[in-house]
Amino acid sequence: MTQPPLRQVVVIGAGLMGTSVALALGRAGVEVYLEDADPAHLRVAVSLGAGGPMPPDAELQPDLVIVGVPPSALGPVIAAALARFPQATVTDLGSVKAAALADATRHAPALLDRYVGSHPMAGSEQSGPLAARAELFDGRPWAVTPHPGSRPEAVEVVESLVAACGAFAVRMTPADHDEAVALVSHLPQVASSVVAGMLTTAAEGHLVLAGQGLRDVTRIAAGDPDLWTQILLANAEPVARLLHEAADNLHQVALTLEKLEPGSPSVEELRASIERGGTGVRRLPGKHGARPEEFASVPVILPDRPGELARLFADVGAAGVNIEDVRIDHSPGAPAGLVQLAVHQDVVPALLEALAQHGWDVHG
Amino acid sequence: MTQPPLRQVVVIGAGLMGTSVALALGRAGVEVYLEDADPAHLRVAVSLGAGGPMPPDAELQPDLVIVGVPPSALGPVIAAALARFPQATVTDLGSVKAAALADATRHAPALLDRYVGSHPMAGSEQSGPLAARAELFDGRPWAVTPHPGSRPEAVEVVESLVAACGAFAVRMTPADHDEAVALVSHLPQVASSVVAGMLTTAAEGHLVLAGQGLRDVTRIAAGDPDLWTQILLANAEPVARLLHEAADNLHQVALTLEKLEPGSPSVEELRASIERGGTGVRRLPGKHGARPEEFASVPVILPDRPGELARLFADVGAAGVNIEDVRIDHSPGAPAGLVQLAVHQDVVPALLEALAQHGWDVHG
Repeated sequence: MTQPPLRQVVVIGAGLMGTSVALALGRAGVEVYLEDADPAHLRVAVSLGAGGPMPPDAELQPDLVIVGVPPSALGPVIAAALARFPQATVTDLGSVKAAALADATRHAPALLDRYVGSHPMAGSEQSGPLAARAELFDGRPWAVTPHPGSRPEAVEVVESLVAACGAFAVRMTPADHDEAVALVSHLPQVASSVVAGMLTTAAEGHLVLAGQGLRDVTRIAAGDPDLWTQILLANAEPVARLLHEAADNLHQVALTLEKLEPGSPSVEELRASIERGGTGVRRLPGKHGARPEEFASVPVILPDRPGELARLFADVGAAGVNIEDVRIDHSPGAPAGLVQLAVHQDVVPALLEALAQHGWDVHG
Repeated sequence: MTQPPLRQVVVIGAGLMGTSVALALGRAGVEVYLEDADPAHLRVAVSLGAGGPMPPDAELQPDLVIVGVPPSALGPVIAAALARFPQATVTDLGSVKAAALADATRHAPALLDRYVGSHPMAGSEQSGPLAARAELFDGRPWAVTPHPGSRPEAVEVVESLVAACGAFAVRMTPADHDEAVALVSHLPQVASSVVAGMLTTAAEGHLVLAGQGLRDVTRIAAGDPDLWTQILLANAEPVARLLHEAADNLHQVALTLEKLEPGSPSVEELRASIERGGTGVRRLPGKHGARPEEFASVPVILPDRPGELARLFADVGAAGVNIEDVRIDHSPGAPAGLVQLAVHQDVVPALLEALAQHGWDVHG
């Protein structure tokens, strides 16, 4: 299947996602025009070089119209785009695909053959065009979700978009996509919100004991409540099913704990539910598509003052070692921190040698 | 209250925690002797310089004996230490304090006045003496949990230990401590395990859509199942109560989703439960005791090749800016990554200027 090159694209909705797509398309040499109901957003996006403001529709011949508006507005905006640009393929960037399709179907049943939903798996806790960047989609999965009536040429146009943005297309049905994001995105979001929400009634003196684990589990709970309400609402059925399942699992662990005596057979049940979590984590694909077990974490002690990270990374870079990830442990009031360098297993010996040569304090 | 200086300390259990405490005490000039049921652990800890192997008990006059053994072994080992060293204060490093006290009480009711439990709030997903480091406790909270019969001098000895290790003491009752860690440590651990466990039955094609949020929520689910089984077992009652509450909250969100129609009043309930999570996250104390809102995140685009992080941190360090935290976003197969630099809000302008001067691509 050849992907037709995109020449001209209209982006409706200049928020974080729409503006980032526009920037990525501009980087790929595509002519981009922008529209947003909020003139301030439009001004910012245009000034960032994401594209030009819309000329009259009659002067346009877009191959593709990309709808990047909040979930609750998708249906009417997709339908209007299909009607306004009768030659164009229309896609959207919504987080839930069956609802977007149902909405579009309700508003423009006769024009749906040119509609193909899509969902780039990238984002930010920030929002708005100022947080946009062309690189947001580089190397990321991007779900493309045709419906049975989608024209094959329209699917190809959307896959051209994905390629032009540096992402890779994952073709799925809308229902399959929604099942997947219910599990990998919506369930962890609600679980994080629930755990974080239970901190609201904690004694202040108890929270002083909080560590990095709690911070990681609750980080995404800081996301935008309005956006998340719309997303969950649009994927209510699969999400509700998984939330009930997670709740049942939590109750089950609690019940097991309540009936436990050390040495009783149900200790093994408790252990199994914890071990099952480890098994699940190890199934997640890593960076560059590598399995997590191909990476190793090398902990290095770092004095907590300016310039030390620079010195560390200069020494690592000079050794030709590529760092896949970095984590700095929070140490309130500490004179030193711990930096975890994640590297490919194969380069661990070279890294350790380079660190030792330069006098770094390495552990593990 | 003056804290008496520690002269001689015995550490029983040369795992990650015991060996780290021994290293920290050695750094502070304290004479440390080590004991472990596993000769290989003991050999590694001694070779790391964590202390000497035990001479005959009669040759020792320890101020303090520190018990760093798995939760299930605490009671007998604490009791034996109290009996073997009749002049010494005895503490332990267990994650659950009421159970440790009850165990110690059962095994050595007459000697308990010299026992004061404690719990350093630091650790690692790694285990064993090889992962130990003297800096593990620097700037961290360390719960000190006397019981009503603890001698005041014994409490002072344990607070000397905390200070010598670079941590700060948080004095609590054993029951209060266990309530606190049930919330800030054990609940998020089980929630993470449950979410991660649900990935075990996912279609492989669904997991390709996983992003950073899921990775953060499930990171701690990779912890040691045997250790976590013992910890949860030892704090069963408070943990079970919180797990039931979390489960009820999840069911409630699911039920709200099931009965929702866009525009119905229950949309507000859904939004409130998500917003409550954000409120909870903002209550967590930050690094150096600062509130999270005092920090800002500056996103920088980073080419994915050796040396770029070094160049970035060299430029940041040269500007005199101290980086509080770093996050590198995973971008499978990407030619560029996004680095989030967390810095104190006050230094953002200086940082942005320095980055711009050196041609870094900054967004936000």
